[in-house]
Amino acid sequence: MKELSPLQIERLKYQPKLPSSLSGGINNLELTEGNKTQSVKDREQIKELFKNTYGKPLITFKSTSKTLTCEQRNIGVILSGGQAPGGHNVIAGLYDALKQANPKNKLYGFLGGPSGIIEGNYIEFTDEKINAYRNTGGFDIIGSGRTKLETEEQFQSALKVCKKLEITGVVIIGGDDSNTNAAMLAEWFVKNNAGIQVIGCPKTIDGDLKNDQIEISFGFDTATKTYSELIGNILRDANSAKKYWHFIKLMGRSATHVGLETALQTQPNITLISEEVEEKKMSLKQIVDYIADIVAKRAEAGKNFGIALIPEGLIEFIPEIKSMISGLNDTLAALENDSSYKNAEENKKFEIIKNKLNSENAEVFASLPVIIKQQLLMDRDPHGNVQVSKIETEKLLIQMVSEKLAEMKKAGKYSGKFSAQCHFFGYEGRCAFPSNFDADYCYSLGFNAFALLKFGLTGYLSSIKNLSSPAKDWIAGGVPLTMMMNMEKRHGEFKPVIKKALVELNGPVFKVLEQNREDWALNDRYIFPGAIQYFGPSSVCDIVTETLKLENNVKLASV
Amino acid sequence: MKELSPLQIERLKYQPKLPSSLSGGINNLELTEGNKTQSVKDREQIKELFKNTYGKPLITFKSTSKTLTCEQRNIGVILSGGQAPGGHNVIAGLYDALKQANPKNKLYGFLGGPSGIIEGNYIEFTDEKINAYRNTGGFDIIGSGRTKLETEEQFQSALKVCKKLEITGVVIIGGDDSNTNAAMLAEWFVKNNAGIQVIGCPKTIDGDLKNDQIEISFGFDTATKTYSELIGNILRDANSAKKYWHFIKLMGRSATHVGLETALQTQPNITLISEEVEEKKMSLKQIVDYIADIVAKRAEAGKNFGIALIPEGLIEFIPEIKSMISGLNDTLAALENDSSYKNAEENKKFEIIKNKLNSENAEVFASLPVIIKQQLLMDRDPHGNVQVSKIETEKLLIQMVSEKLAEMKKAGKYSGKFSAQCHFFGYEGRCAFPSNFDADYCYSLGFNAFALLKFGLTGYLSSIKNLSSPAKDWIAGGVPLTMMMNMEKRHGEFKPVIKKALVELNGPVFKVLEQNREDWALNDRYIFPGAIQYFGPSSVCDIVTETLKLENNVKLASV
Repeated sequence: MKELSPLQIERLKYQPKLPSSLSGGINNLELTEGNKTQSVKDREQIKELFKNTYGKPLITFKSTSKTLTCEQRNIGVILSGGQAPGGHNVIAGLYDALKQANPKNKLYGFLGGPSGIIEGNYIEFTDEKINAYRNTGGFDIIGSGRTKLETEEQFQSALKVCKKLEITGVVIIGGDDSNTNAAMLAEWFVKNNAGIQVIGCPKTIDGDLKNDQIEISFGFDTATKTYSELIGNILRDANSAKKYWHFIKLMGRSATHVGLETALQTQPNITLISEEVEEKKMSLKQIVDYIADIVAKRAEAGKNFGIALIPEGLIEFIPEIKSMISGLNDTLAALENDSSYKNAEENKKFEIIKNKLNSENAEVFASLPVIIKQQLLMDRDPHGNVQVSKIETEKLLIQMVSEKLAEMKKAGKYSGKFSAQCHFFGYEGRCAFPSNFDADYCYSLGFNAFALLKFGLTGYLSSIKNLSSPAKDWIAGGVPLTMMMNMEKRHGEFKPVIKKALVELNGPVFKVLEQNREDWALNDRYIFPGAIQYFGPSSVCDIVTETLKLENNVKLASV
Repeated sequence: MKELSPLQIERLKYQPKLPSSLSGGINNLELTEGNKTQSVKDREQIKELFKNTYGKPLITFKSTSKTLTCEQRNIGVILSGGQAPGGHNVIAGLYDALKQANPKNKLYGFLGGPSGIIEGNYIEFTDEKINAYRNTGGFDIIGSGRTKLETEEQFQSALKVCKKLEITGVVIIGGDDSNTNAAMLAEWFVKNNAGIQVIGCPKTIDGDLKNDQIEISFGFDTATKTYSELIGNILRDANSAKKYWHFIKLMGRSATHVGLETALQTQPNITLISEEVEEKKMSLKQIVDYIADIVAKRAEAGKNFGIALIPEGLIEFIPEIKSMISGLNDTLAALENDSSYKNAEENKKFEIIKNKLNSENAEVFASLPVIIKQQLLMDRDPHGNVQVSKIETEKLLIQMVSEKLAEMKKAGKYSGKFSAQCHFFGYEGRCAFPSNFDADYCYSLGFNAFALLKFGLTGYLSSIKNLSSPAKDWIAGGVPLTMMMNMEKRHGEFKPVIKKALVELNGPVFKVLEQNREDWALNDRYIFPGAIQYFGPSSVCDIVTETLKLENNVKLASV
């Protein structure tokens, strides 16, 4: 029986590239301190909450001929949250750096996410274990989890576990929330003289953990390339069969970086951007009209096919829907014990609810297709709230566009055929083999995380910059986690959090979409990226995302 | 603005490999005739229907030093039916052979499938046109269509169009039905002294156009590799997050070769094979019990996750469902004008139907989840029949397995968590860039098709054999289309058709699944194939499917 695929066998042999500052060896680094830093907003509050770790300087590493050895240390590592391609390489880079620094160093992996450090579930990494996972996708090396590391009790447990294992440094690989928790843990360890440092690594396929200091989170590159492969294949299918509209929903409930990047890679006819919908206060009707208009115009040109990209979180960005759902939550709560509602048949239920909502919300509710009303009333979470994530936005839009087109047909304004297929891509890309970019980037992030630990730093995010240049020219260093924080309301309370990067409507990436979308809508400018390539010409296997390229160009121009 | 992806730019340069018998040049071929052939079944009837083209010999080509020039000819080509990766290369191979034979030769492409030859919609291929599509996916070079070429009137129109363009040979690239039509057209042209030859090329991602003579249809290799990439990524995600069961439906309504091949490439926990369900007369309940049993056993081992592969056509292979649907079609027809049914609310409708069905069918109907009953009653085709293809089999199974597990939980036989995600893969793989295998195979099929035309043959399928060996050792030749035919009932009438290859339960491919599935169900033997590679080590970019490898091994052993 086979155990490994041919690609996996070859990828295990791949040696990720390091920036030249790091490739000189972990014991031959020189640290440069930049200026002291400030948080992006709410400085006084953040400073108050992070008394011991606030305001640290930016760090940059350089290679030096002076050798600085490393006393024996034990380090722990945690994978937190949703999978992103390259997580295994962060661990491999960390492991290699740590063993290079002192072969007696040990790396422990906490199992199943942050709960591993609380409950003391761990393994010790060996060469054999690490070698079996180099350059592979997934987080299965130690598993991941979504436990939030944030209470005093959890910190106490983590301390106990670390003390038992003589761990003096913890690396947390996660998204914005996990790194917020890393900052809190770092602060707590310092405050309690635990002698344990904490370093974060920026992970998320959503691409929303980025800022002036962090160019991109890892996994975004591979995930968007995988989705673009599939979108490109579907574009080609649509353009060959010429009979279907494909509505493709892309995972990610907040930012639309994935939708924007895949749109630039494939040039489909329609791309909806949640941030634009919110900014322009678009109604569901306006969105439906926008799509129906393009469908009709294409039909006029004899093209009854096309592709629309839909962000998973769209519906939560439509102001009127947000308001309606909030009203619905109250209404459903009030009807909790109302037997005349409970025993009513479906249409009657819709009627009762419509009458209880305020007129604006009632109108929005009434405008929705039956299947969506059903989903709104059926799937409520343990708190009794409507589960927006279960709403099949792609089907909602297909249904409403189809109704709109039927109206237009009656009015003599449309005479095409509208036949639609829907798709949802998310799990397909989170565990792909990391692209060469992500393999190199992640390995460097992990290697660099140990460099930060070695220099005694805590409360830092491992940072590799200048990513649109070749790996040797990448700049390794560290960014204080507090620098990226502000105060935001979460569950009714103001909390310090790392600011999520949403799509900027005046940013260079959205601009490309904006300038081209009319052309892309009507003419077929489809691009077919094909499968990620790990070998072959550099032009195909060392590509960076359009997002990174465009944003770095702007940064360079402003320097 | 970008026009081509980096991969496309590189792939346009790829030079597909030819068998050494063909690479010596199209004008340096020698033809060897084998024995006369017979149809696989119903010989008298097929012979009667194909008086002029029945019983021709098998053909093999060899390279020779003697040069045989070619008088100027015009050839037409048609893409028929669903897209399959490599179609463009068939045309490129045909074009290159034709131009090599005589630079004055012309190749016409009929637009939008078989309707192009009937309606006289065509283009003439040029170097520029062909060069822009080499080694790309899709059928967008001339489009495809599903018109069946089978009536006297259509043949007359085709003849008129060919005469106008002075076409003396037509190449039809299609699946079993399209090649059946190719055989009919070939026969009709001979009978009517049209002086036009017809050659078919075996296309379909389903992999069901194969037999003793045809090892595999083109496109199966690339499509199954693309699906396996995605399935592998999802396996890795499931194994990292450890919280979801993923039910993955795979396109293809008749044979389950795609499911079987992808299962062997990825080794998921559950793989349903339609042919086995039919052969063993399995009920829906048995299938649900089989899945629930594995879910429960894995839960006992602490594993509340897994992957199940579901063939799109499954439901039509379950004898009791087939019977119920047939009963339902009659019942719904009888209720067509029944206003008490029409005005009834949903539950009442279900009740009325249940009472009209015979007891066995009624029981099956009653056992289905509401959402499936709704789909059964809502979506009827123009003939008033239930549209089985619209039934979301993956959701049906999730719902029923979930109910079964709830029962088991009550009985104390299950204590896990069952949370499921569903996926449907089809359009994602039909237009991928052809793998090196498909790029070479298709180019050879097209090149070889012209060789058959050059030797004056008609009613043949272009055949390239010995495909699990390196391309240079492939064997080029032709198989009489009538050899693969038998009589089958279609829409109430017996017709000559090319026999579809279903999964053989005593074949070598199914045996591998059968021998391993208990192990794969409970233990995690997941394999992660990753994205198709076009460059790099031969071990990753020149892989053939498990199906081809296993079936050819058996053929070799029996020689």
